[in-house]
Amino acid sequence: MYKQNPLSHIRVVLSHTTHPGNIGAAARAMKTMGLHHLYLINPRLFPDPQAVAMAAGADDVLRDAVVCSSIDEALQGVVFTAAMTARLRDISIEVKTPREAMPLLLQEAASQPVALLFGTEMSGLTNEEMGKAQVLVNIPSHPDFSSLNIAAAVQVVAYELSVAAQSYLPSVPEIHPASHEQLEGFFAHMEKTLFEIGFFTTQNPARLMQRLRRLYARTRLEQEEVNILRGILSIATEYNARLRARYKQENPNS
Amino acid sequence: MYKQNPLSHIRVVLSHTTHPGNIGAAARAMKTMGLHHLYLINPRLFPDPQAVAMAAGADDVLRDAVVCSSIDEALQGVVFTAAMTARLRDISIEVKTPREAMPLLLQEAASQPVALLFGTEMSGLTNEEMGKAQVLVNIPSHPDFSSLNIAAAVQVVAYELSVAAQSYLPSVPEIHPASHEQLEGFFAHMEKTLFEIGFFTTQNPARLMQRLRRLYARTRLEQEEVNILRGILSIATEYNARLRARYKQENPNS
Repeated sequence: MYKQNPLSHIRVVLSHTTHPGNIGAAARAMKTMGLHHLYLINPRLFPDPQAVAMAAGADDVLRDAVVCSSIDEALQGVVFTAAMTARLRDISIEVKTPREAMPLLLQEAASQPVALLFGTEMSGLTNEEMGKAQVLVNIPSHPDFSSLNIAAAVQVVAYELSVAAQSYLPSVPEIHPASHEQLEGFFAHMEKTLFEIGFFTTQNPARLMQRLRRLYARTRLEQEEVNILRGILSIATEYNARLRARYKQENPNS
Repeated sequence: MYKQNPLSHIRVVLSHTTHPGNIGAAARAMKTMGLHHLYLINPRLFPDPQAVAMAAGADDVLRDAVVCSSIDEALQGVVFTAAMTARLRDISIEVKTPREAMPLLLQEAASQPVALLFGTEMSGLTNEEMGKAQVLVNIPSHPDFSSLNIAAAVQVVAYELSVAAQSYLPSVPEIHPASHEQLEGFFAHMEKTLFEIGFFTTQNPARLMQRLRRLYARTRLEQEEVNILRGILSIATEYNARLRARYKQENPNS
């Protein structure tokens, strides 16, 4: 019906999954809703017969699964990442429901890879992992018992994607969003710069970088904008170095 | 917020479940979405440690589960049953999506018990079981791989219920729907009558009863209407019995 099926651009990324049965059940859940691309970050056991048993026929999803050693590897080339969270944390980045977020994800998937990121069974995603996402997604659940099984969560989100795909109309993308690597390069550059110019002497670097990540996650940086921002960072470093040199010159005994 | 929580009137009925792990996973899925009442029709293994393991904390749902020996026992007192089907069969009763059906179910659950009926892992519900439902529900899935795990299906439907409950406004019920027992009494009466009056000599009784069940499933019979219809059935037989008696009287040697 469409030139490109947006579901084929969506990858499901499971981080540090403990039980191979959950990987298999997630693969089955994906396949029932037309998703195929599974990425596994350091799974405890994979491949494993229990994964195959729980996949119940979604063997092709398991066979084509990509095992990665880091989240950056799993998100390579991805332009939009939705991270699942079980808690409505005290975070400045917006938390959406699956019903709100999946149509957005589908639009982003029109022409480029996007990711759905799931954390471990016990503790979910780390703050660092969530910092790599553009949107957080929470499946509303009972306050007294909110722990969905990870494969059940994959099923719900994949189902919402599939329902959204029924009424999907591709839009012409007007922006050229920066890729995961470009964003990470920018954040690394920024952190280095903030160290160099002495900004971090009075601040908690990790916490501040989280806040900056969230700020830029909301803006959906374009490639061109990343280039501009990195240009500013470079100039800032040079300027700071010049100032320091002059200060040293004028205060030789300091 | 409401005097009565409609979710507390919803029972999940699993028919002839093979794997106890699926019962546990279904209990967990229910509890995450605020459902508690689990009914099991002839489960192969229950209670079972695997059910407890997969429930992952939803032990109370398992503990309070009601084990039944027939579908009629499981549906006792229920005024509205939604049966899950994996196939869009050639059936005259309407098949709805979870998104269409769950708000209806919730409205029915305002003051009286309703049921969500799930079949076995391998073959789903029998035609007889589906004949007891007022609506069939199909989770849209990929045509090449449509077999959701039963607990995953429970999760999706319970999730839709929970989302629907967020915007739930109780309506004053204007009708007094007949209970499951009243409907079954009516169907038994009708079948007996159709036999007595000789209707079934040229028809396939089972197939015809299925069609009649579907017809009445659409109408949502009220208690009063069941009484009227059963009154008609009684009269029909009486008339027939009178005719036969008179015929015998007039043709003593026949």
